[in-house]
Amino acid sequence: MKPIDKPHFKAKKSELDLEQHIILTYFFESQTDPEEAALNLCQEQSTAQWKRVGVDEDFRPRHGAKLLNLEILEVKDQPFFQSSFNKGPKFYNCKATIAHPHINFGPKIPNMLTTILGEGVFYVPGITAIKLMNIDFPETFLKNFQGPQFGLEGIRNLLAVHDRPLFFGVIKPNVGLAPKDFAALAYESWLGGLDVPKDDEMMADASYSTLAERTKLLGELRKKAEAITGEKKFFLANITDEVDKIQINHDIAVANGVNAIMLNATATGLSAARALRKT
Amino acid sequence: MKPIDKPHFKAKKSELDLEQHIILTYFFESQTDPEEAALNLCQEQSTAQWKRVGVDEDFRPRHGAKLLNLEILEVKDQPFFQSSFNKGPKFYNCKATIAHPHINFGPKIPNMLTTILGEGVFYVPGITAIKLMNIDFPETFLKNFQGPQFGLEGIRNLLAVHDRPLFFGVIKPNVGLAPKDFAALAYESWLGGLDVPKDDEMMADASYSTLAERTKLLGELRKKAEAITGEKKFFLANITDEVDKIQINHDIAVANGVNAIMLNATATGLSAARALRKT
Repeated sequence: MKPIDKPHFKAKKSELDLEQHIILTYFFESQTDPEEAALNLCQEQSTAQWKRVGVDEDFRPRHGAKLLNLEILEVKDQPFFQSSFNKGPKFYNCKATIAHPHINFGPKIPNMLTTILGEGVFYVPGITAIKLMNIDFPETFLKNFQGPQFGLEGIRNLLAVHDRPLFFGVIKPNVGLAPKDFAALAYESWLGGLDVPKDDEMMADASYSTLAERTKLLGELRKKAEAITGEKKFFLANITDEVDKIQINHDIAVANGVNAIMLNATATGLSAARALRKT
Repeated sequence: MKPIDKPHFKAKKSELDLEQHIILTYFFESQTDPEEAALNLCQEQSTAQWKRVGVDEDFRPRHGAKLLNLEILEVKDQPFFQSSFNKGPKFYNCKATIAHPHINFGPKIPNMLTTILGEGVFYVPGITAIKLMNIDFPETFLKNFQGPQFGLEGIRNLLAVHDRPLFFGVIKPNVGLAPKDFAALAYESWLGGLDVPKDDEMMADASYSTLAERTKLLGELRKKAEAITGEKKFFLANITDEVDKIQINHDIAVANGVNAIMLNATATGLSAARALRKT
């Protein structure tokens, strides 16, 4: 980066409209001057080129990511990852705080991730390892998201349990158990005091135990267990699936009397969880 | 793992119905006996518990992942990652080949990822670093997927270019350019010989350049450029968005005369790409 360009990727918090930025905290290791590495990180994740050839314009004030703060945590003589690309006498461990204008992607998770954890971030000159540690969102961004439907307090209200831990457990064997055997174990666990038996994360709508068959049994037994114990009970059904099947699975599970669902949003994409929340 | 359990997580290829398994290649580093670590990896990603208490049954033959081959690549005195959990005099770099029965998840990408790159894989006793290197799929699994709609040959046919490289480039500035300025650059690039100008991965349907406005201009100019140059041209529009917006973006882009689309499937989830392909 040319010295003349450096000030365009730096700012003080007081100079920015913070409602228009998300605040990113990165941990990184660099083999070159840490500040230059951090400014390159800002450039690569925003306006890598900020003007047209032959046109007097500058997109950086509105669209450029800005370094707010840089802390050198440690200077080492070895990098985290051994590689022929990672060389140099010194490796700097740093914490960088960056303000990124959210107009660049809007309130969209996949587009935000493409920007803050995408190609640019992993090809920054000088940076030999990087990890996104935190994101702070302003209200203008968050207001587009619905957030949890119940939250912890809502879950406690539904179970009518406020004065003790909630007991939660995976039915085992986790893989391969037939629906009726699975349901029998869940039923025993409710009677034994469990609040929330659940599917394993590896078992959802499987050919050896379809979600429809399993949740039908569990929905019925849950009501029976509630009648016997006099307590509210949950069954947590794993509806993780291809994104065009998630809503269908949800509707099957709920129609069958299952009253809690889990979704592995790392595997489906976070956006699938958001889409389900909207319905 | 008890010695008596070890043979249940091992197999020879000749003993398995390979059409019922995906073959996984992992690179891992272990601080304990490599074979035991590899067998633990098989166990954690499949039948962590393989029978009910008090029932004479065994789910491992049908549902257990099986170690086919283990190669010790290197023995080191330092781990890849410095951590208080990673200790011991020796660290083994290994390559493990594992057959995993696909009945455990079915032809579903999120469920497969949950199993082969999920919680179990990252909590294997003895393993201090792990990376999935390859998956081989049998025909019984692949037949559920449609694969590419056109493929390289189909793209060459559509562009009527068979005897030279295809020229492909991102319009820059990549972030912040207004639709009419963006379209003017794309138009110039077509006249200058580019086959496929494209949106940056960081720009999709943004408030400063909506997909609708941008693709309308680009669809019209693409046809004009084709008429002037006498060549077929593509514009590649970035339709990456929340999963419930992808199909809508696709339809807008196509209706506007844009004839190629890109989707960042790392950010949306691979399943979103599969869902789009089905329509």
